[in-house]
Amino acid sequence: METITTRRTVRQYSERAIEQELLNELLSNAARTQTMGNLQLYSVVVTRSAEGKAALAPAHFNQPMVQSAPVVLTICADFRRTTAWAECRKGTPGYDNLLSFMNAATDALLYTQTFCNLAEEAGLGLCFLGTTIYQPQAIIEALHLPQLVFPVATLTVGWPAEEPPLSERLPLESFVHEECYHDPTPSDIDRFYKEKEALPVNREFVRINNKETLAQVFTDIRYTKRDNEALSQGLLEALQHQGFLK
Amino acid sequence: METITTRRTVRQYSERAIEQELLNELLSNAARTQTMGNLQLYSVVVTRSAEGKAALAPAHFNQPMVQSAPVVLTICADFRRTTAWAECRKGTPGYDNLLSFMNAATDALLYTQTFCNLAEEAGLGLCFLGTTIYQPQAIIEALHLPQLVFPVATLTVGWPAEEPPLSERLPLESFVHEECYHDPTPSDIDRFYKEKEALPVNREFVRINNKETLAQVFTDIRYTKRDNEALSQGLLEALQHQGFLK
Repeated sequence: METITTRRTVRQYSERAIEQELLNELLSNAARTQTMGNLQLYSVVVTRSAEGKAALAPAHFNQPMVQSAPVVLTICADFRRTTAWAECRKGTPGYDNLLSFMNAATDALLYTQTFCNLAEEAGLGLCFLGTTIYQPQAIIEALHLPQLVFPVATLTVGWPAEEPPLSERLPLESFVHEECYHDPTPSDIDRFYKEKEALPVNREFVRINNKETLAQVFTDIRYTKRDNEALSQGLLEALQHQGFLK
Repeated sequence: METITTRRTVRQYSERAIEQELLNELLSNAARTQTMGNLQLYSVVVTRSAEGKAALAPAHFNQPMVQSAPVVLTICADFRRTTAWAECRKGTPGYDNLLSFMNAATDALLYTQTFCNLAEEAGLGLCFLGTTIYQPQAIIEALHLPQLVFPVATLTVGWPAEEPPLSERLPLESFVHEECYHDPTPSDIDRFYKEKEALPVNREFVRINNKETLAQVFTDIRYTKRDNEALSQGLLEALQHQGFLK
């Protein structure tokens, strides 16, 4: 898995198709990931058709990868199949609640990341779309997701047609805590973010956004309080709609 | 990453310690995983001390791995560090909401799974403790987690001292859907679960639990509606307490 140290998000893909056999092998091997009670509380919707991609695109703010990638995968937290199983077998399922959503979302995200590790090792390029939980209701409708199924991750997948620069990461000490959590002091913050803030690419990012600091680009433009609060409301309503907050 | 096809959850560990250097390399390489806006919305609390493990054990229903593993990792959704950064840089952070919790939990879980894949490839054995979100408040207190930090995964890690049998998985067609979700019919359910239900280990599991079907062991004993609803309430209160539902 040496590819992990050189991986980058890939948003441009070649014309080459992804063979069904390869995709199935990756999807199948990823399922070796640990899962709660071995219940596999996830499902994957594979979108290859142009119409399917066009239907998903608006939910992802029309980011071009959704329509240009050969394959789009929507990975869902799924208690529907397990509930259907229980109903067919005289069980009394009780998974219409927040804990069960989080259990299934956990299963789905762990599965997603093993798929990413395997796919990147096989030479594929991926983009993880964080927009999946921004407008979940639109995805639910596009993919006909029933009750107790909720989209938590989207991957656009293809053979890479670009090799963007490696993005920076914070030093280990900024996110690893020994024995208990150590709340960062202002001088810790200076030390953790110094290199990141000094990078030419990030200084340019601040400049073109007309901001004074890099942090402001994130808090005041990209991920604002107002947007987060509005999207939280939509997320809550979609969770209710899918039956996870009974 | 061939280890993925032969991995199993490991709950018994040898006396051999995990070298700090190896652990740091794995924790550092796992951070190459994609992350929202490159913000790395996670933190890892490393517990090596006997006292630290003893403090965590009750939150995990005293499962013996917590105290017998050389290392316990608690991976947290973390908007605290990013918020502290913004506060030091004239930003206006707004991450005290459900969407931000899910964004950070997603980052944390993807990071967790790359760590698992790397650690297993290095020969380590792991157990993922789903109990992390069952009594989060107890973990929050044991690890002194501040506002906007929430535990989402726990791993017990060590050199394997057992090789349990490989656990079964459902067939690919049960969790992969082409173009849109296909709600399983009772005959689909029969086909998907036939092999699983026929396995001697699962038949024995039904017998010792005095149940008629395998599904009933899960719905009526292991993951009951009553427990799920009570734990959902605790999860909601802990999310409020950590400031994610303002």
